[in-house]
Amino acid sequence: MPDKPSICIVGLGLMGGSLALALQRAEWPRKIIGVSRSPATRAAAQASGAIDRAGATLAEAAPDADVIVLATPVRALLSQLDEVARHARPGALVLDLGSAKGEVCAAMARLPEGLQPIGGHPMCGKETGGFASADADLYSGKTFVLCPLSRTSEAALLTATALAEAAGSRALVLDPSEHDRAVAAISHLPYLAATGLVNAVAAGNDPLAWALAASGFRDTTRVAASDAAMFLDILMTNRPAVLAWLDLFATEMASLRAALAAGDEAALSERLAAASALRSGLKL
Amino acid sequence: MPDKPSICIVGLGLMGGSLALALQRAEWPRKIIGVSRSPATRAAAQASGAIDRAGATLAEAAPDADVIVLATPVRALLSQLDEVARHARPGALVLDLGSAKGEVCAAMARLPEGLQPIGGHPMCGKETGGFASADADLYSGKTFVLCPLSRTSEAALLTATALAEAAGSRALVLDPSEHDRAVAAISHLPYLAATGLVNAVAAGNDPLAWALAASGFRDTTRVAASDAAMFLDILMTNRPAVLAWLDLFATEMASLRAALAAGDEAALSERLAAASALRSGLKL
Repeated sequence: MPDKPSICIVGLGLMGGSLALALQRAEWPRKIIGVSRSPATRAAAQASGAIDRAGATLAEAAPDADVIVLATPVRALLSQLDEVARHARPGALVLDLGSAKGEVCAAMARLPEGLQPIGGHPMCGKETGGFASADADLYSGKTFVLCPLSRTSEAALLTATALAEAAGSRALVLDPSEHDRAVAAISHLPYLAATGLVNAVAAGNDPLAWALAASGFRDTTRVAASDAAMFLDILMTNRPAVLAWLDLFATEMASLRAALAAGDEAALSERLAAASALRSGLKL
Repeated sequence: MPDKPSICIVGLGLMGGSLALALQRAEWPRKIIGVSRSPATRAAAQASGAIDRAGATLAEAAPDADVIVLATPVRALLSQLDEVARHARPGALVLDLGSAKGEVCAAMARLPEGLQPIGGHPMCGKETGGFASADADLYSGKTFVLCPLSRTSEAALLTATALAEAAGSRALVLDPSEHDRAVAAISHLPYLAATGLVNAVAAGNDPLAWALAASGFRDTTRVAASDAAMFLDILMTNRPAVLAWLDLFATEMASLRAALAAGDEAALSERLAAASALRSGLKL
């Protein structure tokens, strides 16, 4: 791996676009080749200086790259691994940015032996997508999870770590299933709860509720505005973990409901106080 | 009612303290008498200029006031109405700031005839309490719900409206039950969902989850850090509406779970997209 690698970033939306901006600012890569099917996105990314060269396909861009970053939605990137296998340069590091790692790492294990796959998940994002939302600071100060495969070389992991740090993040090496269980708890479950809240208020058909919605509703439901197609992919590739947390959540909600319905103030108070103490103590 | 009324604010926590600061800044009252059982709170409020005079009890402060604002938790203020009845000056406006209005307005209807009761609910707050969190800008630009009783005079409603506007809010007159149903949807239900999320993650006993928690979890669960005793009061005085919304929410969550478990992407996608479109369209 050269000191200043050549990077191909596939997908120039929020995550890929922000990574390109952050790495350019850090002057970490020799060059960045951005891949997007959209001519408008390619033009915008090139005009902003986020990428040095643009391509419409992996076939054009991958052969020149020491590092291939797949920044497309999880199932899109799963289907792109065949193209990576065909077009990547031997020895290239292949890193993704998807929010669920089990299926991605399993699929990466089938890449040709000469390639160096690592599952990645930067713990950042926002509810707006597209290159227009890209931000060189998105990765700053955030945890960037790396899931190397058993065959991944130490050198490739060092390169991925250096990339994460160049983007401003802290690298954290995790097992894919550990990652998927934890992220289901603090990202996928809250997303579904926010979605359920918005849909429940809609189902209740109370225009006054929308009119009175204030900062509490704003924050509690913010992530429900996320791109639905992206989250569909995440949920479908992390089903067992998400279902397990949904069940724990349903149990908690049923306990809260039962205590309130029964007027059992001691039980209700205990649950509210426990959550308040825990949440107040979190540094977020 | 004099042009510049004398106000007694009972409870100098986040809501009462912030109201005192905002009204003083607007130079709306002739004077503000602050009532708190805590000597430290009285001293802090007086030192900050939020109040002109401090008292430990309603008995000391109420007889001097044209307007009595009850800024204590809902059930505390319900128990203070007897004292208001004994000590308020004839013709005084009695306004509360509680988050559930049905029980408060019903109790206010039993105040002596000479008094002018109005239920109030400023749609603002934050998850930290106490006078130390008070902020002259808390009410700025927010909706301040007013629920006059059938007997309340037009003049009293005008005074309450002027008070809300002096604090920087927009007054909105509502029926108590309409208010309670809407607020259960956009405040009490999200609070319980946030509480359930925090408790579910705790029940799952996954230290990595806490370590990876980022901005999505931070925002979705922020309100769970609210004062548990305050919310216990709110929930206990708004049970029918909260239980109805909890049931709608449980139905939505069960539908999301069923679609995910069955791998029914069309159904799941439809629900995610509906929430995303709705939430993106909200001006909050």
